[in-house]
Amino acid sequence: MTHSLAEYRQLAKSLAVDALALVPGPNFTRALGHSFMSHERPFVLIIAADGPSAAIVPNLELSSWDLVGFDGLVFDWRDQDGYSDAFAALAQQMPMKRLAVEGQVMRVFVHHALKQALPALEITDAETEISGLRMIKTEADIAALEAAIALSERALQHVLDSVQIGQTEKEIEAALIRALFAEGAEGMAFSPIVAAGANSAMPHAHAGGYKIQQGDALLFDFGGRKDGFAADITRTVFVGEPSDEARAVYDTVLAANLAGFDVTRAGVTAHEIDDVVTAVLEASPYGDRIRTKTGHGLGRDVHEAPYIMRGNHQVLPAGTVYTNEPGLYEVGNFGVRIEDDVLITETGCRSLTQFPKDLMIVGR
Amino acid sequence: MTHSLAEYRQLAKSLAVDALALVPGPNFTRALGHSFMSHERPFVLIIAADGPSAAIVPNLELSSWDLVGFDGLVFDWRDQDGYSDAFAALAQQMPMKRLAVEGQVMRVFVHHALKQALPALEITDAETEISGLRMIKTEADIAALEAAIALSERALQHVLDSVQIGQTEKEIEAALIRALFAEGAEGMAFSPIVAAGANSAMPHAHAGGYKIQQGDALLFDFGGRKDGFAADITRTVFVGEPSDEARAVYDTVLAANLAGFDVTRAGVTAHEIDDVVTAVLEASPYGDRIRTKTGHGLGRDVHEAPYIMRGNHQVLPAGTVYTNEPGLYEVGNFGVRIEDDVLITETGCRSLTQFPKDLMIVGR
Repeated sequence: MTHSLAEYRQLAKSLAVDALALVPGPNFTRALGHSFMSHERPFVLIIAADGPSAAIVPNLELSSWDLVGFDGLVFDWRDQDGYSDAFAALAQQMPMKRLAVEGQVMRVFVHHALKQALPALEITDAETEISGLRMIKTEADIAALEAAIALSERALQHVLDSVQIGQTEKEIEAALIRALFAEGAEGMAFSPIVAAGANSAMPHAHAGGYKIQQGDALLFDFGGRKDGFAADITRTVFVGEPSDEARAVYDTVLAANLAGFDVTRAGVTAHEIDDVVTAVLEASPYGDRIRTKTGHGLGRDVHEAPYIMRGNHQVLPAGTVYTNEPGLYEVGNFGVRIEDDVLITETGCRSLTQFPKDLMIVGR
Repeated sequence: MTHSLAEYRQLAKSLAVDALALVPGPNFTRALGHSFMSHERPFVLIIAADGPSAAIVPNLELSSWDLVGFDGLVFDWRDQDGYSDAFAALAQQMPMKRLAVEGQVMRVFVHHALKQALPALEITDAETEISGLRMIKTEADIAALEAAIALSERALQHVLDSVQIGQTEKEIEAALIRALFAEGAEGMAFSPIVAAGANSAMPHAHAGGYKIQQGDALLFDFGGRKDGFAADITRTVFVGEPSDEARAVYDTVLAANLAGFDVTRAGVTAHEIDDVVTAVLEASPYGDRIRTKTGHGLGRDVHEAPYIMRGNHQVLPAGTVYTNEPGLYEVGNFGVRIEDDVLITETGCRSLTQFPKDLMIVGR
């Protein structure tokens, strides 16, 4: 199962570092074909550009580690002894000068342990390049994403069918979570956002005690996990009849979302997608309600490369999956966001999200 | 809601640093009274030992941030502009020399952004001291833990009542997850461990396709979350009649767990608890099956200080909650672990976990 270490070894060479370090998380899982938990114990895979690789493994993980079939050096350590000897042994056998790490995954205590063992070590943040290896999805990756998205959509439909005026955001959130697991989710991509009325204007609101009422926007941003992959879907519905302004805002956000699909095909840049989507919002009377970029890559991580924003001139190849999620947010009033998960193909794109986007009224 | 920043300011003084930095996670939530998500965007609260505090806030979080009532300097940044200007502005207005961080929470990309803005900044890992402020639980903390534990126990009972020979670990895990959310969990403390037969000998096994059969040990390690706090419970049951050896191992682990309760009262050290518990295991014929320390603190984080292990001579005050979770693991055969969540009191201790510990046979 360690066949894909070769890919990381090659990356270490092209980054001109002595090795890459991976810690438990999506890259670690992908590289090893096994997932491990990361808590207070340092657990580090060192993939050398040349020569044998190495791993610092908490002793209590050794029995699981054996299943990986790793053929490099293993430095295990026990809780009662601490981990500095394991890092010192690593330093002695692999006297590295330059190490590339995942800056968004590795935590400071591991960075400090590495620097203590190798004070002259130059640690560079190669998050973009390391996680970039996950950008082009395989057929199996796409099947897992589709399964995660399909079960998430069934859960949303179930909740929308049962929403009633007077329910709190928290109650609706609980119904959504139960429905996700009933539909086969293996976990949640993140703590769901269920936000009504003025709360819908906060992009990262948490469900609270607010009771939904006639005229409210009701925003759901959530996703289930399946086979290691995460869905990420947003739909904004209305509780009873929306105002004319709310309808106009909804139509604007939908038009922006659709413009994103129109421009997406292999070879487009992240900048171009965001530019086209955001231009629709800017050309509307609601340009001052723009708060976010268009979206982000989606896969094992719910937020991963590529980031779909102006200024990111990265060319997106076929097989990339990103979220197309324009929104307009008026603080104190309401917000609307529509988010689809989009697979880029050679000739265009395909929405992995199938849930309808017509303006929907619930709670009648 | 920012009243508790004073506590962190005081800690900065006693650590002789210019400031503490907190990033989204349990300390951040506790300090601010609001929880925030942490993804690819740097979001940092800088609590100065003297003078105003500061925060680097992603622009899309500002509407949520306003609810915090923070009265320090705020440097917000937008996705399209990047975050280096916000760090540069922080550096200019707060020219810090020494900064203490949570080494188990802050990731390397934030560390790098701080060092880029303040190249001479000395960043020290004060995880122990910062998270140590959470060690003594308030009455509200304990009530939340009890609620999380009670719902987790109801979920476990539900699953044990329905387990059948021939079910896979994955199927049983799915039933456990559904039951957790049906009982009111707001999230899971971690991805549950449901491990049968030889898999139960791996302390951090994941549920797989293995079908449980007569004579298997069946280990559950899991917990729900409620009001920001995490339960962490392990029970090992048997599928049909266990072997004599399995009974003897179970009795040994239970005796070790009970010995931990006997020695626990305010003023005990973490070392003393682990020493007493582990001595019971060592005195048995199964001493070579010990793989882990006795346990860890429990609260907003499922693994937090204090770590209950030999060599940690930290004195534990009343109000500390820790996991008492001895286990014996024979690779290729089976493992047994029993885990309770224990509140230390002035005169002794109280198990927050109420689930029975008599050897239980399921699937008959």
